Order: sequence, then C-alpha cells, then structure tokens
Amino acid sequence: MSAQPAGGRAEEGRIAPCSGHALELATGDELVVIDPMGEQVSDLTAFARDDTAEYLSSGRSIDYASRLWLTTGDVLYSNRSRPMLRILEDTCGRHDFTLTPCSKRMFELLYGEEEGRPGCEGNLAAALAPYGITTDRVPIAFNIFMHVAVDADTGRIEVRPPLSRAGDFVRLRAEMPMVVAMTACSAGQSNNFRYKPIDFRINRASAR
Amino acid sequence: MSAQPAGGRAEEGRIAPCSGHALELATGDELVVIDPMGEQVSDLTAFARDDTAEYLSSGRSIDYASRLWLTTGDVLYSNRSRPMLRILEDTCGRHDFTLTPCSKRMFELLYGEEEGRPGCEGNLAAALAPYGITTDRVPIAFNIFMHVAVDADTGRIEVRPPLSRAGDFVRLRAEMPMVVAMTACSAGQSNNFRYKPIDFRINRASAR
Repeated sequence: MSAQPAGGRAEEGRIAPCSGHALELATGDELVVIDPMGEQVSDLTAFARDDTAEYLSSGRSIDYASRLWLTTGDVLYSNRSRPMLRILEDTCGRHDFTLTPCSKRMFELLYGEEEGRPGCEGNLAAALAPYGITTDRVPIAFNIFMHVAVDADTGRIEVRPPLSRAGDFVRLRAEMPMVVAMTACSAGQSNNFRYKPIDFRINRASAR
Repeated sequence: MSAQPAGGRAEEGRIAPCSGHALELATGDELVVIDPMGEQVSDLTAFARDDTAEYLSSGRSIDYASRLWLTTGDVLYSNRSRPMLRILEDTCGRHDFTLTPCSKRMFELLYGEEEGRPGCEGNLAAALAPYGITTDRVPIAFNIFMHVAVDADTGRIEVRPPLSRAGDFVRLRAEMPMVVAMTACSAGQSNNFRYKPIDFRINRASAR
C-alpha cells in the first residue's frame, strides 16, 4: 500500500502517521480500517453524502447500544437516529466513542505542547474541507482501537495503549451514502507514543 | 415560581414537565438549576452568543477533566476548547455527559413508544429556534442529575433514577456570553417515570 490522493478515489491505502484521509462510500460498501503495526488509533467520523448536517453521533450510538464500547454487531447511528455504519467484524474489540479528536488546543492544555500540530481534529477538518465541513463541525469521533479505561465508582478515565495488535481490523458496512474521514492518530497517549500509520481497504458493493 | 415566557428575560422560573426553556447569560452570570421535587433530570446545552457555531462539547469537557462525571470545580468546554461554564456548586454530584437528549425517535427505538412526543431534543430545539439553532445542531447535553451507571469491564451503561433529592441544585458560572437551553426531562427511565418540573434562577453579575 502507498499514500493515496484525497478525493474518495482510493480503494485501499495507507494513512501516513499524524495525517487524515476522506473517502466516499455508497450504501453497502464496506470499509476495513486496519492497524498494520499494532497500538495505533484511527479517529473516524462520517457525514451523510446528501446532507452533511447529518453526522455520526456518539451520543445516539451509545444510547441505542446501551454500551460505551461498540463492537461486532453494533450499529453507529447519525444525529437523526438513522443507521450510518454497521460493525460487521472487529478483531480488536475495544474502541472509544466518548472523546473529541486530539487537537492543537488539546495538546497545549493536556500535554503542555506548543508546536501547533493540527492533531486528528485538524487532519479530519483538512480531509473534509472539500465537502464544506469545517473544524467546528468535527464531532466526537469513533476512535477505533483507542483504549479508554473507566473507573465505575469515580468516572475517572484513563487513556491506555491500544489493545490492537499488528493486523487487527474493524470492518464497517455503510448503511447510507456518506463521506468518511479517518486519521492515523497524532496523540502520543493514545498510541503509546509511537506514531504509526493506519491502513484501509474498501470493498465496493458494486464490485461484488 | 411560575411559568415564564421564553426570550431570556426571566430571572427565575419553573420549567414545566416535559418542556424546555432558553435564556441568555453574560460573562459572570450564574445559573442555578434546581430539582425542586427530587429525581428529575435537566438536559442543558449552550451556544456562544456571538457565534452559535461554538457550542458546549461533552467530548472536550470529559477529555480535559479526565472524568466522565463532572462536578464542583470542573469546567465545561466548548468545541473550540474555550471554557463555557464552570461548576461553582453541586449538591447532587452525579450527572451524565455521554448521551444525546431523548427524542421522538429514541422513544420509538428504545421504548416502543409511538406518541410522537418531542422529548428533550425537540424541546431544546424549540427553545433555541429564535436563535436559528435547529434540531440537527442539538448536541450531547450536560444531563444534570441524570444517573448513568457504567460497568467498567463491559462498558454496559444503565440509566438509573437520579440521586438528586428535593432542593438539590447545580450552580454554574458563565465564562462567555451565551445562550443556554435546558429542559425538564421527558424520558421516563431518566426520572424514575415521574415527570416533574425543573426550577432555575439567574444571579446576574451586573446586579452584584
């Protein structure tokens, strides 16, 4: 696999460390998000192709699953309570859906880092810019492979190294036409301070 | 207290069961959200007065607090990572910040209810309509007094009756000029199937 141009044409590709990529899916298309080396996170968000005011909603998805952590069989809903993505296969089993993507400001506030790196927020916004979606509209992402532990008594959360090993993947089915954006995560705490790539593959419904 | 007109003029009031209310706060104003009878939930959201593309973000707030459940001393951030509201006082101590407001569609999907009640989502959108904010833009709310238990092993969540007793309140300080909308919650599971009112009071910085 190699780096791919933006614009939704790539059928498979590698997302370079600390970057993002957007692509389009038709209903029935499958997107496979792969951690090629292990312990890397991919923040994924999605918008309806026909009306980007409809977007992937963590709050709806968690409510309908009655579970913070979604896996095989679970459905990811839009803010309009319509199914957007269905998890067909998940070889890792642990992802986060509560935190916003890492960002320049988050690096300053939590890590005291002032390099001005765009983070997943900036990388998602850049990938989504051709669709008219701005930084303000990047929501809480489905943070694939991100491992957030919760203390059930205090609600304390702790970001731990991902449980994903090399080759682990999540296979998602698009339930509506959509734009998906995803990253190879830029937050050290999320990927055990090794900034690695993320691979993806699209299985088109039209090719089956 | 009595029912108050919408439009941000009321300095105190009662939000009738299964309804919503919007008001404006200047920097330094304090908003007290009160559960007058106990075991009731108020979904609260906020938008910057000068640019409503800036809104209260659960994902940012949880990330910066490193805690799912926020209480006295915690800051509620916007999607732009700016402080919006500061919790000055909290006599209950347990609130939710992970779930979207209950909605017509949520009542259908989770409760099999087809009466078409607008839920907190519809009531927040109606209260925010004068500010040009539509249903699509109602985010995950700060669900005051909502008690969501989490299983730390499975991530399973369970909505339980609120821990709030009659008179419990949360006192919030506005950190920027904003529009706030809040409800007396319409979801039976959230308020132990007793649909009660919510009271509020504003302490204006200009009057101190």
